Amino acid sequence: MKELRNIYITGVSAIRPGEYWNRSLEDMSYTVVEEALLDAGNPQLDALFIANTLAGGLDTMAIGLDLPTHNVSGCAAGGLAIHAAINGILAGEIDTAMILGAEKMTDHSALELATALMSPASIEEQLQGFTQPALYAIIATKHMEEYGTTRDQLSAVAVQNHNHATLNPNAQFRRPITIEQVNRSHKIADPLRVLDCSPISDGAAALIISSENTSNRAVRISASSVGSDTAGLDKRENILKMRATQKATQRVYEQADVEPGDLDVVELHDGFTIGEIIALEDLGLFPEGQAATEIALGKTALGQNLVVNPSGGLKACGNPVGATGVYQAFEIVTQLRGEAGDRQVPNARIGLTHNISGTGVTAVVHIFEKMVR
Amino acid sequence: MKELRNIYITGVSAIRPGEYWNRSLEDMSYTVVEEALLDAGNPQLDALFIANTLAGGLDTMAIGLDLPTHNVSGCAAGGLAIHAAINGILAGEIDTAMILGAEKMTDHSALELATALMSPASIEEQLQGFTQPALYAIIATKHMEEYGTTRDQLSAVAVQNHNHATLNPNAQFRRPITIEQVNRSHKIADPLRVLDCSPISDGAAALIISSENTSNRAVRISASSVGSDTAGLDKRENILKMRATQKATQRVYEQADVEPGDLDVVELHDGFTIGEIIALEDLGLFPEGQAATEIALGKTALGQNLVVNPSGGLKACGNPVGATGVYQAFEIVTQLRGEAGDRQVPNARIGLTHNISGTGVTAVVHIFEKMVR
Repeated sequence: MKELRNIYITGVSAIRPGEYWNRSLEDMSYTVVEEALLDAGNPQLDALFIANTLAGGLDTMAIGLDLPTHNVSGCAAGGLAIHAAINGILAGEIDTAMILGAEKMTDHSALELATALMSPASIEEQLQGFTQPALYAIIATKHMEEYGTTRDQLSAVAVQNHNHATLNPNAQFRRPITIEQVNRSHKIADPLRVLDCSPISDGAAALIISSENTSNRAVRISASSVGSDTAGLDKRENILKMRATQKATQRVYEQADVEPGDLDVVELHDGFTIGEIIALEDLGLFPEGQAATEIALGKTALGQNLVVNPSGGLKACGNPVGATGVYQAFEIVTQLRGEAGDRQVPNARIGLTHNISGTGVTAVVHIFEKMVR
Repeated sequence: MKELRNIYITGVSAIRPGEYWNRSLEDMSYTVVEEALLDAGNPQLDALFIANTLAGGLDTMAIGLDLPTHNVSGCAAGGLAIHAAINGILAGEIDTAMILGAEKMTDHSALELATALMSPASIEEQLQGFTQPALYAIIATKHMEEYGTTRDQLSAVAVQNHNHATLNPNAQFRRPITIEQVNRSHKIADPLRVLDCSPISDGAAALIISSENTSNRAVRISASSVGSDTAGLDKRENILKMRATQKATQRVYEQADVEPGDLDVVELHDGFTIGEIIALEDLGLFPEGQAATEIALGKTALGQNLVVNPSGGLKACGNPVGATGVYQAFEIVTQLRGEAGDRQVPNARIGLTHNISGTGVTAVVHIFEKMVR
């Protein structure tokens, strides 16, 4: 990919993820579309990229947008929509676009959700009745065997994300939890318990992306890459590494000329606690087998040099599937603008987002940088 | 969009659409992936773009492809996947990619299909129980009122597509039909009858797209554009025009510096017979209200200066939804290469594909040109 010198996020908006039984997809979307446009100074838009997994479509006229529309689906839809918009700009097709992530999960039955969320899995995994928690439970079990990862270390991931969320007025779950509470929460797929898992969320978030730096608060995107891996865990050499993340990460560091140590803030895909541990290593932030220990020691919490998931992550800020990647970018842009309030990472200059589908079948990684005046 | 001077289709493959109760999505895909690679001289691939509407995913390792994978869905997925691959090349992210269109419709119930195919419709249309044939029936009724379009003229569209398909060994329906047979076929949504409608098809088609002209049979893509319209017919000023098609078409003619009269061969989206009539006008090939008469006079049949749907179109070659846009490109490339056998359009030099979702909510239009030696 060419150098992304001139790609900026000039406007952002997100509603607090939650259970909105009284709001439609269009209603939630309308709010963030309006706010993001206002935030960016009402630019002329050339295209709309919609990240949504479950609805299969959105009435864009109902949200006031009459634009060439690109629908992106899957659990990494948010990241992929940003990637597609960047390619549209680099290709010279568009100058300014809206990226809208919107998801209504509460309108679907548990069976519908489980089926949809298993679409990135292999046919064998689907036919055997696996769910995503069951697949991640296999990974967690193997991780415990291989690296001696403990139940308390898994719980520490959820505890930290909830701690961060207490400082985020836009987080779905703003209450702190304890290691003991996670350890004793309902079992979902051994060893994973309900508090290891990200929630069912409704939500909408929007970004304005542009080749023109129209705002003095703009943030630059300096790298974007997509990686892939086998759909089935059984076909992987090592299920404790996500090759999709590793490949995309290698490319973004090269593209942005950034090293892991340069990152100030990361929003990564903690669909399950074990996922955060694995991602931290795949992103090159900790050596193999050490992330679980470091997280439990608080090395990725607010106040440290590297802060992971200051929003509360998927676990506590919320996981409105297709929109999640857009929420991650919203958080990083807010941090780099210095507008994150109580959860602000001091002097945040370089941030990264990491959005995956399923067990890391697709991974999309972006690097964002604060504009230097 | 920048000039597409250096974007080529260097390999193609497609299986005959049909009902394949004994073949999986992966099995059909494997065949076309292997053949397209062979056709292109086994190039190194940088990415995979999958166009599929119903499956939600495809095990790419099962088809031997270990590549960054972009999943594109919706009824215009085929066209959108080609568009995304072009943007990837123009963005400098990739040099050579595979575009795979694959769809297995026979594995789904009629209800599942109707629900999935209605995803691009407005919420109001969905809640009122509309199906795509019902929406197109409204358009056809209005067209008959406004322009005096007759039952026989609608039927002539299906007859011509079946005539073309008799010459295409890869068409799903290779038998000729008569105007009388269409007029008397089962009623689906008045005035549309079953022979006005494209079929349920399984199928797979693949293209190799590249910034390098590695084959002396390569075809150049000279324009690519996406247009959008309201999801609901009720929000349109005029339901007899598809603004999505008109907007995308205007842009591709400018981009390729081509006029409608320059086209030798067109593959357009005839999900229903009335759709072909409207598309011909929106593509600027006939003046408003005249396409129905011209088709019935045989002005778009093989042997004429402009040939429409020589493959048999969606109606007779088949409509494996998400893959359809890839099938259209397969046909145009085959025509421009001069390899279309009995259905060859003599001296075909410039071709166009037109792929839409629903009632023209999204339209993707491409122009292809024969390489001049």
